[in-house]
This record gives sequence, C-alpha cells and structure tokens, in this order.
Amino acid sequence: MPKIVDHELQKEKVAEAAWRVIRKNGMEQASVRNIAEEAGLSVGSMRHYFSSQSELYMYSMKLVSERVNLRIKNIAFTGELLTDIPVLVQQILPLNEETIPEMEVWFAFVVKSMSDPSLAVLRKQVDDDMRQMFVMIIQALTDQNLALPDLDYDIEIERFYALIDGLAIHAVLRPEVLTKEKIESAVNRHLQSICRP
Amino acid sequence: MPKIVDHELQKEKVAEAAWRVIRKNGMEQASVRNIAEEAGLSVGSMRHYFSSQSELYMYSMKLVSERVNLRIKNIAFTGELLTDIPVLVQQILPLNEETIPEMEVWFAFVVKSMSDPSLAVLRKQVDDDMRQMFVMIIQALTDQNLALPDLDYDIEIERFYALIDGLAIHAVLRPEVLTKEKIESAVNRHLQSICRP
Repeated sequence: MPKIVDHELQKEKVAEAAWRVIRKNGMEQASVRNIAEEAGLSVGSMRHYFSSQSELYMYSMKLVSERVNLRIKNIAFTGELLTDIPVLVQQILPLNEETIPEMEVWFAFVVKSMSDPSLAVLRKQVDDDMRQMFVMIIQALTDQNLALPDLDYDIEIERFYALIDGLAIHAVLRPEVLTKEKIESAVNRHLQSICRP
Repeated sequence: MPKIVDHELQKEKVAEAAWRVIRKNGMEQASVRNIAEEAGLSVGSMRHYFSSQSELYMYSMKLVSERVNLRIKNIAFTGELLTDIPVLVQQILPLNEETIPEMEVWFAFVVKSMSDPSLAVLRKQVDDDMRQMFVMIIQALTDQNLALPDLDYDIEIERFYALIDGLAIHAVLRPEVLTKEKIESAVNRHLQSICRP
C-alpha cells in the first residue's frame, strides 16, 4: 500500500512540475525532458510514472479539475443558498495563490485541447460537470422559491456559467483590474439579479 | 503605392496561414517553417514580410483585433440602444464562419501571451479597449435613463464584459451546446436585467 501511495504522490509532483513549466514557459516548452528536469527526475525514471507525453498531459489537466472537486467536496455548506452559492462558485474562480496557478494551467490545457483529441474528451467531461453545477444552482433557487418567476432556466444556466468563466479568465489576465473584491461583488450582484427582491 | 498594398496584403495572407496552422495543430506547431509552408512561401521569402517569429506572432494576433474593430466600425447603428448594443457585442462573439476561427486563434494567443511579454502588452491594450466598450455601453444606458437606478457601474461593466467573454469561450468550445440562439438570448436577457422594465 505505501508504495501505491508514494507512486500517486510522485505522479502528482510530476504533474505540478508540468504546471510550473507551462506557466513559466508555455505549452511549447512542456516537453517530457523539461518537465523531468523541473521535477528533478531523469527522463528515464519518468517512464515509471507516465508512458507518454500524452498520458502526462492528460493526468496534469485532470489534476486541476480534481483539485477543484476536492475543494467543493470539503465545503461546509450552511443550507442557506444565498450564502452557499457564492462559496461554491468561488472554488472555480482564481482568487488566491492556490487557484490562480490552477486556472492559468487550465486555460493552457483548454487551448491545447482544441488541437488534441484526447484532451478534448477530458475537457468536455469537465465542461459537462461544470454546466451541471449551474443546472443544480438554478434548480435549487427555483425549488426554494428564491428565483424570480418566469426565468428561462436554460438561458440562466448559460448566463451564470459564462459569467463565472469570463470572470475567471479576466482575473487571471488582469488581476490588477479585476480584484477579488470586484469578482465577489459581481457574483453577489448576479445572484441578486436572478432572485426575488 | 501598389507595391505597399501588395506587401500588406501578403502579410495578411501569411498571418491567416499562421491562424490555420494554430487552429489545426496548436501553437506548438506554429513555427516560421510550418507557417511558410501553409502560406506557400519559402522560409527565405518570409523574411520580406517578418523579421522574426515574434514579429509574425504579434502581427497575427493584432490582425484578429483589427478585424473585430473593422466590423464594429462598419455597423449601421440605429440610435436605439437596445437594438444597437446586441449588434455591437455580437461582433466580439464567435457566431459564424468568420468569427469562430478568429476567436479560437485569439484564445491561443491569449494563452501564449501568459509566457510572452510582447504579446502580453498587445493583449492588455486590446483588453483595455474591450473594457472601454463596456464602460461606454453602461454609460449610454445611464445617460438615456434606460439603466436601472442604483446600479454599481464598475461591477456592471465587469459583469457584462465577463459574460460576453465567457459566452465566447463556451461557444468556441461547445458550439453544439451553446448555440447562436442561446447566445443571443443570453445577451438580450442580460441587457434586459440591467434596464428598467
């Protein structure tokens, strides 16, 4: 058992080295050789963990979404939707030293997935999960009679989800313009705008 | 004069070849050699147009924003804000065969700009211009007394801008989910939600 744990931990360390290379030098420089060097491993020993660059990329991209899912799982929900929903969506927003690098790497993999079919499959799965989160948010607001009547659910799901991803990319690119405070105000304002007064 | 025009036209053709390479095979494959091949030019003759890969990237990224600006300049505005604003923001959304490839390439350059300081400068300029467009939209709605009273302008600017960029990236990644009709409904619904009934 400890060996399996070590193996998984080591894979995560390699993936985190891949994240650092991608953030510092771009996807173009994220070769197995450069990632091995960043991780302090020989190219040969990388084969213990990943059989190909493609497998390493897949694992490194997936690790981002797993970290997000883990944070969501660990939220201590209060049961008050208007408190819980902002906390929930904050887990997918780049607001601190852990989540800003994650989001940068995620966008790099998303763009890479446009010309990489394996990564595209993973990206679609994560996109489906994310959209499902907004389906549940709008559904919960409606069930608790908090949502405005006559909302077009499909449109509100897309609008909330797009807002959060737009804020995420703007926060990564212009943290000096789109501050943490502005992001939180925008999320709260959006929630308020789809709810009864 | 014709020579200068030809030279500019040829540069645009090379940049469009760069777009195609980036879309097909990713930024990693967008070497001067591969772009020359796609453009039907020798690597040697590429030097007539661009002195370096960096200059070629800069020009190719800038061309995307110039195409957007040209479309905006050519809009026949009606003077009715609630008609004109959706038409305006549609120019930065990937809704057709011209604008979908543009947006894909734009996102690839945005990610590249995270590890490329020259592209980062250009990206910030375009981001400033885009944000200014939303400043003007919210200002115009307020001046014409169409906006809801008591809006927090700064937040509404960020919220509208983030929504549009979020819709743009979702439309590029999942056109089968986020259809043209849904995008247009989301934009109209957003506009309605910040305006008086």
